[in-house]
Amino acid sequence: MDNLSNSDKHHGLGYHPSPSSGDRLDRSITETTGYSTLSGDSFRNCRTNSETSSFSEPADDNSCSDEPSPLRWPITKPVTSHHDDFTSLGMKQDIKVVDETNNDEVVINSELEMMKERFSKLLLGEDMSGSGKGVCTAVAISNAITNLYATVFGHNLRLEPLPPEKKSMWRREMDCLLSVCDYIVEFSPCQNHQDGKSVEVMTSRPRSDISINLPALQKLDAMLLDILESFQEAEFWYVDQGNLPLITNPSGSFQSVIHQKKDKWWLPVPCVPPGGLSEHSRKQLQHKHDCANQMHKAAMAINSSILTEMEVSEIYIAALPKSGRAGLGDAIYRCICTSNEFSPDYLLDCLNITSEHEALEIANRVEASMHIWRRKVGMGHSKSSWEMVKDLMDDVDKSHILAGRAETLLLCLKQRYPELSQTTLDTYKIQYNKDVGQSILESYSRVLEGLAFNIVAWIEDVLDADKSMKHQD
Amino acid sequence: MDNLSNSDKHHGLGYHPSPSSGDRLDRSITETTGYSTLSGDSFRNCRTNSETSSFSEPADDNSCSDEPSPLRWPITKPVTSHHDDFTSLGMKQDIKVVDETNNDEVVINSELEMMKERFSKLLLGEDMSGSGKGVCTAVAISNAITNLYATVFGHNLRLEPLPPEKKSMWRREMDCLLSVCDYIVEFSPCQNHQDGKSVEVMTSRPRSDISINLPALQKLDAMLLDILESFQEAEFWYVDQGNLPLITNPSGSFQSVIHQKKDKWWLPVPCVPPGGLSEHSRKQLQHKHDCANQMHKAAMAINSSILTEMEVSEIYIAALPKSGRAGLGDAIYRCICTSNEFSPDYLLDCLNITSEHEALEIANRVEASMHIWRRKVGMGHSKSSWEMVKDLMDDVDKSHILAGRAETLLLCLKQRYPELSQTTLDTYKIQYNKDVGQSILESYSRVLEGLAFNIVAWIEDVLDADKSMKHQD
Repeated sequence: MDNLSNSDKHHGLGYHPSPSSGDRLDRSITETTGYSTLSGDSFRNCRTNSETSSFSEPADDNSCSDEPSPLRWPITKPVTSHHDDFTSLGMKQDIKVVDETNNDEVVINSELEMMKERFSKLLLGEDMSGSGKGVCTAVAISNAITNLYATVFGHNLRLEPLPPEKKSMWRREMDCLLSVCDYIVEFSPCQNHQDGKSVEVMTSRPRSDISINLPALQKLDAMLLDILESFQEAEFWYVDQGNLPLITNPSGSFQSVIHQKKDKWWLPVPCVPPGGLSEHSRKQLQHKHDCANQMHKAAMAINSSILTEMEVSEIYIAALPKSGRAGLGDAIYRCICTSNEFSPDYLLDCLNITSEHEALEIANRVEASMHIWRRKVGMGHSKSSWEMVKDLMDDVDKSHILAGRAETLLLCLKQRYPELSQTTLDTYKIQYNKDVGQSILESYSRVLEGLAFNIVAWIEDVLDADKSMKHQD
Repeated sequence: MDNLSNSDKHHGLGYHPSPSSGDRLDRSITETTGYSTLSGDSFRNCRTNSETSSFSEPADDNSCSDEPSPLRWPITKPVTSHHDDFTSLGMKQDIKVVDETNNDEVVINSELEMMKERFSKLLLGEDMSGSGKGVCTAVAISNAITNLYATVFGHNLRLEPLPPEKKSMWRREMDCLLSVCDYIVEFSPCQNHQDGKSVEVMTSRPRSDISINLPALQKLDAMLLDILESFQEAEFWYVDQGNLPLITNPSGSFQSVIHQKKDKWWLPVPCVPPGGLSEHSRKQLQHKHDCANQMHKAAMAINSSILTEMEVSEIYIAALPKSGRAGLGDAIYRCICTSNEFSPDYLLDCLNITSEHEALEIANRVEASMHIWRRKVGMGHSKSSWEMVKDLMDDVDKSHILAGRAETLLLCLKQRYPELSQTTLDTYKIQYNKDVGQSILESYSRVLEGLAFNIVAWIEDVLDADKSMKHQD
């Protein structure tokens, strides 16, 4: 992935420079089928025209219309006029008439028209040629949620309430996207009492994964926005680092803050009054930090549980190396294989991993080998020639053990690097997912995880500024 | 196809018993991917609860919920409750709050909720499990339009205005389905004048097939409804044939009418006053008949032009017989092949076709052979070995001629049987179509064709009743 545009995106997203979270959103976006262009745009756009939704927004970016890429949303402007063409040609006469006569109707119709636009674009699967060569619904909705998040929160680089218009956009459009879940059901037998005797009938009910996770995510969503809302009047304030020379307010904490902020130059600098924050607001801040931290953990847990449930794409399977050993590399393979007592932590220590990037690369290899061995175990049962059963069983047992060890190793790795970004397998799962319910839960939990992560990071920045100020005194 | 449910559908659709038009809708419905259940239902349903849309209607039919078929719409009822579950779980709090506070908002929200339901079901592609195993958007929209037509017009078996609630449902839901077209565009270069010099930029504009055909179809739609509307106060009236014994009104025309109506027992009997219709209203009726007839021709022309443009499914190609001769059968093949002067009309005379069904069967065979020969011509160019070029060219020329003759034969056949129902190729095209624009144009023109056909037939019935009455005097 092109690192420039990559880091570019972090900034647009107001991400803590930890590669992880930035990558987390990046990868899932840029590696989603035919999505890179779109996401790239929307991220750049969300720095320029932040008041429009990601659904319709890149449409307003005229630069889009120079390229006939069907993967963008270069539609609103052209289509509005097109829409007018149709009206003049006799389309939507009824609505138009109503528009002129009744004011409430106007409101209704504008809302309806907006909704139609959003859903229509989802139905076209981002292929505005209408030829049905776009992405499937699941991917389209996942992309829409990711883009909406970038549009609404992309500018929000500080602890302050979300602008009302953005807040309402977030609510309105998420509500629109989530509404699809209301119609996803599973069937189950249930006892039905009819004139005395009970009969068993099949009834439909919300799909369990949705009815469990969606309300939880919506609570998290609301709570995170409340935290931002709570910074209406704070004892601290922000200064853009670009404007530093112009700063007149001689906050004592300044130099030290600049110093510690060299590594995240795109973030505004939190400043605290001389003498630091009051005990009360410091305690409050600490409390909010802990809450946001819990919410981050919760969102992360839901996201990984959904990812675990998602189907492993055939393309990933096909791309797997021949053997688990080949995938893993001899060094790690020997450690995993030979020693009778397998200690994943000891192995990780030996590997002395230096960067998150390295950790991710190892995680990908371990995950691949794990799947190779699991498949071996699975396929073992399908064979049936008697003379080879014995060695086969040994083979299966060995694969079983290796798969188990790979799994624990992967787990340890993820525990050591909690912000580790999505593995190749995860991105494949998102890219080739067909399940609409899972796509909504995965993308919703992913963006909330990102938001929670940012809030935690921003609070820490303020606390640091406060600490260094107290030190100075 | 099961003939019972088949004819059943005709009646539900209020079709003239000519197999053609009935079949026309039937085939396209029952042979659309995984559609038979749904369509079957919706047709039965539209006889029971006619006030609900086909989108949501079978949902209200509890019988649906005993079977976990993902191809139905067994959702509204369950999901409403499910929706409530979610609300109680904290979903859509904002909307709920608004509902209680503001009345206009209630209107807006109910409209929005309806729209969300419709679009969500389209997005799920009729697979309410959300697992993405449903039909593609193109097929889902085509099915939705076919079902909406059956729900709104399925009961309308006589010349009378459409009930207002059905009229508004038709407008509202078609508007909702057609709105997808507003976002289907094609890109084209256009001269753009910037500070003096002109630059060529790509701009998007409505896809030409849509901008040409959709407004035309919407005009036809409006005009057909106007014709029905014009029968507010007519000189004739209807009597259900079931109620005949109970009839007290001794209309002289009665016996004769019954007589001529044995073959369409499910249609109400048009009755005219003793002495027949007034000259004025007879003329008016004749005029409306001619208009409706023109509209029927127009809708049919658009439908067949869209069908011609639709891609030939690989599955159809794969199912073609080895040779054009085999497909056509020796008898016809000899006529098409040997005679130097080929006269399709003479050939058709020789075949003395007795039924529409037979005509359709021959049309299918001719169409299949035509495609086999066309493919031969096409493939001819791809070959390149020199020594075989000569015989190859002969072969290609022969295939070319045969394909041409088959085409003219098919044309003549369709001219002789203007109400011939869809050929196998057409149903394959509809079933495997991925193009959303074409699916909307095809289904919209198909249902309008059906409506126009019925209006023409019903007017003819009244004119016949009038004629026979005049004869009696």
